[in-house]
Amino acid sequence: MNIRPLGDRVVIKRLEAEETTKSGIVLPGSAQEKPQMAEVVAVGPGMYKDGQKIEMEVKVGDKVIFSKYSGNEVKFEGEEYTILKQEDILAVVE
Amino acid sequence: MNIRPLGDRVVIKRLEAEETTKSGIVLPGSAQEKPQMAEVVAVGPGMYKDGQKIEMEVKVGDKVIFSKYSGNEVKFEGEEYTILKQEDILAVVE
Amino acid sequence: MNIRPLGDRVVIKRLEAEETTKSGIVLPGSAQEKPQMAEVVAVGPGMYKDGQKIEMEVKVGDKVIFSKYSGNEVKFEGEEYTILKQEDILAVVE
Amino acid sequence: MNIRPLGDRVVIKRLEAEETTKSGIVLPGSAQEKPQMAEVVAVGPGMYKDGQKIEMEVKVGDKVIFSKYSGNEVKFEGEEYTILKQEDILAVVE
Amino acid sequence: MNIRPLGDRVVIKRLEAEETTKSGIVLPGSAQEKPQMAEVVAVGPGMYKDGQKIEMEVKVGDKVIFSKYSGNEVKFEGEEYTILKQEDILAVVE
Amino acid sequence: MNIRPLGDRVVIKRLEAEETTKSGIVLPGSAQEKPQMAEVVAVGPGMYKDGQKIEMEVKVGDKVIFSKYSGNEVKFEGEEYTILKQEDILAVVE
Amino acid sequence: MNIRPLGDRVVIKRLEAEETTKSGIVLPGSAQEKPQMAEVVAVGPGMYKDGQKIEMEVKVGDKVIFSKYSGNEVKFEGEEYTILKQEDILAVVE
Repeated sequence: MNIRPLGDRVVIKRLEAEETTKSGIVLPGSAQEKPQMAEVVAVGPGMYKDGQKIEMEVKVGDKVIFSKYSGNEVKFEGEEYTILKQEDILAVVE
Repeated sequence: MNIRPLGDRVVIKRLEAEETTKSGIVLPGSAQEKPQMAEVVAVGPGMYKDGQKIEMEVKVGDKVIFSKYSGNEVKFEGEEYTILKQEDILAVVE
Repeated sequence: MNIRPLGDRVVIKRLEAEETTKSGIVLPGSAQEKPQMAEVVAVGPGMYKDGQKIEMEVKVGDKVIFSKYSGNEVKFEGEEYTILKQEDILAVVE
Repeated sequence: MNIRPLGDRVVIKRLEAEETTKSGIVLPGSAQEKPQMAEVVAVGPGMYKDGQKIEMEVKVGDKVIFSKYSGNEVKFEGEEYTILKQEDILAVVE
Repeated sequence: MNIRPLGDRVVIKRLEAEETTKSGIVLPGSAQEKPQMAEVVAVGPGMYKDGQKIEMEVKVGDKVIFSKYSGNEVKFEGEEYTILKQEDILAVVE
Repeated sequence: MNIRPLGDRVVIKRLEAEETTKSGIVLPGSAQEKPQMAEVVAVGPGMYKDGQKIEMEVKVGDKVIFSKYSGNEVKFEGEEYTILKQEDILAVVE
Repeated sequence: MNIRPLGDRVVIKRLEAEETTKSGIVLPGSAQEKPQMAEVVAVGPGMYKDGQKIEMEVKVGDKVIFSKYSGNEVKFEGEEYTILKQEDILAVVE
């Protein structure tokens, strides 16, 4: 993976429905801003906000739940990714 | 429970009406942004805001009142949960 | 009273019209955001904002004037309460 | 006067037209957000904002000009008052 | 002049067209938010913002250019004045 | 030039099309918020924001690109100028 | 390149479709705010925000992905550039 996100951004790859189900997460299909599951593929260096370092709490390989409409989608070497800020990641599934 | 919320987020499970009533809380059915009752199932590590650590004031097992339209809903192993920020929790019922 | 408000929130119980009149306060009936009178029944621990502790300036038993449309209403053991932030309390009546 | 305003709030009593004229101030009748004249009857203790104490610059008895649509109106012992934040007071007339 | 503005506010008196022209400034008549010229008649003590003192950069007698729709208009002893924040003053004409 | 801008404001004079072209800059004619080229004629003293001094990065004589709809226009001794904040200047052309 | 961006701004030159494809990035054609690829041609000195220096994380020659509708477009010596803030750059492609 050769995309290096800036600041507190994270690059994630959405998990397909079957993968999601295997993980035990079933996401509602009708919510207006439905969370979704993805795998982290790249993590930014963090950034300063209000004079305080924002440390990155996720790492490559983490399964995460994020808000569907956050972030920007991009295709790279035939695969689709989403670049979003860490604050748009709701939780890590372990 | 294997969902680890990030920052100052909390994972809660809504209490059914009968449970709510047993707790002594009856919530109004018509308010535009009606509070609801839930049990805390996972708590994030807290976060820094304006250069100050936000400590988590709720713990797993707490019964809490929160604003209905805050947070994101997610299904996990057949159960529905809500992930929201601690600031959207109004009070703990003891 | 078993509701413990979080942060700088306060739980109040609205005073009935006769109680309000007895206190000498008569509130206008037509203002768009009319203040109302209530008694404080529970007070949060305060919170940090902009790196500064917000101390609670009201205590249980205080008669307060607040903006009608602020806060969330909740029923508890048959009684109605309002949970709001201290900054939505305008004044204490002594 | 038994209303104790919280934070940086001030309780004022509007001056009648004749009083206003006597003071030398004549206020425009058609401005969209016209200033008005009032007398300060109670002053809050001040508050912290952005880590800095906001000191109260007005005192009981001051004649002040304020923006008409700021603040909340309240009746107390048959008289009408306005509760507003000090930052909505434009100037003191001496 | 007996109006003492609070905080970082300034009291100004608009200059008539002939005065403005004499000063060499001709203001456009059709701009949506056209600047105007005025003379400073009273200056507030300054204020703290974000933990930093805002010093007053204008003094009584300064000719200033300001945005037309900023501030509040008030009549005092038969003359019209405008009370506005120093940040709404664009420049001093020397 | 006798206009002294306040805070972090800058007074600029727009360059005519032929001057702009001579400088090598051709600006798009249809963009919704098209940048434009101008020469700096006066620079404010800078200001404090968030407890940090904003230093002025432009000086009199600089050719700058700025957003068309930012700032206020003013005529002075028969010439038109624009007064805008330094943050609305995009770049210096050297 | 003679455009020196101010503050935390960056001047970029969009890469043509063929260049983009050669880099392995294929961008979606229908997203409402689609990211795009470009090469950095000039970088500002950074700036202070909230009392903290924003360091520049990109350098001249970097291939970057940015949000299409951010920034201002400008023509210089016959070529089109975009001037945008570093925070509108999503990631560097390596």
